[in-house]
Amino acid sequence: MTSPWDDAGGLTRDAFLGGRLRLDQPRRGYRAGIDPVLLAAFVPARAGDSVLELGCGGGAALLCLGARVGGLDLTGVEIQPHYAELARGNAALNGIAARIVTADLRALPPDLRQRRFDHVIANPPFFDRRQGTAARDSGRDTALAGDTPLADWIAAGSRRLAPRGWMTVIQRADRLADLLTPMAGDLGSIVVRPLCPRAGRDATLVVVQGRKGGRAPLRLAAPLILHYGPTHGQDAEDYTPKVYSALRCGEKLP
Amino acid sequence: MTSPWDDAGGLTRDAFLGGRLRLDQPRRGYRAGIDPVLLAAFVPARAGDSVLELGCGGGAALLCLGARVGGLDLTGVEIQPHYAELARGNAALNGIAARIVTADLRALPPDLRQRRFDHVIANPPFFDRRQGTAARDSGRDTALAGDTPLADWIAAGSRRLAPRGWMTVIQRADRLADLLTPMAGDLGSIVVRPLCPRAGRDATLVVVQGRKGGRAPLRLAAPLILHYGPTHGQDAEDYTPKVYSALRCGEKLP
Repeated sequence: MTSPWDDAGGLTRDAFLGGRLRLDQPRRGYRAGIDPVLLAAFVPARAGDSVLELGCGGGAALLCLGARVGGLDLTGVEIQPHYAELARGNAALNGIAARIVTADLRALPPDLRQRRFDHVIANPPFFDRRQGTAARDSGRDTALAGDTPLADWIAAGSRRLAPRGWMTVIQRADRLADLLTPMAGDLGSIVVRPLCPRAGRDATLVVVQGRKGGRAPLRLAAPLILHYGPTHGQDAEDYTPKVYSALRCGEKLP
Repeated sequence: MTSPWDDAGGLTRDAFLGGRLRLDQPRRGYRAGIDPVLLAAFVPARAGDSVLELGCGGGAALLCLGARVGGLDLTGVEIQPHYAELARGNAALNGIAARIVTADLRALPPDLRQRRFDHVIANPPFFDRRQGTAARDSGRDTALAGDTPLADWIAAGSRRLAPRGWMTVIQRADRLADLLTPMAGDLGSIVVRPLCPRAGRDATLVVVQGRKGGRAPLRLAAPLILHYGPTHGQDAEDYTPKVYSALRCGEKLP
């Protein structure tokens, strides 16, 4: 029997949130790092809220959020059919109800275009295809590099937000301007949260949040420090307590 | 004899950089806080460089920079004639050569429009006139609230930059998007530096730098922490060492 993952070396089943969540992932291809887990931890969702993830891949962020907060109405959009199918399988594997729609976020199906969500989340591809070389696996390539400008992600997301709804996006820190410009144009009450690998070091990641119709001043928040100490220790798990709690215990940030 | 400062309660002569610089300032009106001193400390100028300050007021930032780095070619532009005259007097008081031009930064005189500078610096008014109430003193009002959108400051400054020249701007952190959007549009090698009053607290100020023709990725730098400890101590001088060195010893940042 052939699988769309044969060329990626098949699937591995990996533990997230200290084992509370298990995710099947391609051995070679887009594999979730800490960024979707941190993204989920930053989403201020409460039971009963509706959540839309743009570009959900295998479902890591959406399902981490679903594992932390019960009673959410979860929807994921993924352009690549085999990743969308993977996300459906991962939702079932963890007993989390989630609707996964195979679609381009710039051309959502009519029923989604008629909905508004309390939260929109996204972990857009971290590399700009125009500046990088394509990965060998085209699925990994789309997941890592993408064809869709960040501004299109933000526009699609803000259109789907309910009044007072929050958009939460994680991205490489060096794309802050590309992310903040459209978010501050469409949304208010912006929060910019740098994520620094060590105290005193440049941020490598940034989480930007904005609220539909929000009127609070922009906040440039204190950085979340990911690791202890000046250099990478022997122990790869040298996360600071808040980050450890988010990654291994499924707790919220900040 | 009447002075334009009579209505402001006259002038006071104040020490900056631990006494290396003295500045006359209106008793009531725009008085330099730490922001122009920090701005000057962040400017990567070297002897022989040319520097243009937009909206120089009484000259605090320009003259702090001139006190730290010898042999600079300093030009300040100030729209309010009595502040421009004050800046001229302050330059003479400190024996620092600086040309102060009374002009609107959006309509610079032809000789300035033909020049290019190695550095452009600005400490634009911190309050948006549309959202605030006017101060009683109209000079203070212009210096604090301004009539000129931030995007106009950036456009005027980037046009005056020499190739590879740096623009350095300090501003309230909650205006990061208004500042970063035009700077990232016109300039490259952007550096965003949050300035936080205490460790773990939101930034109150931000320094954004950009380079004409720069191609380095944007850096979201670790915050500069201004004060020690969790709350404001009895000692108003509880600055962290780097900040103390910049404010009292005239040293560069970071």
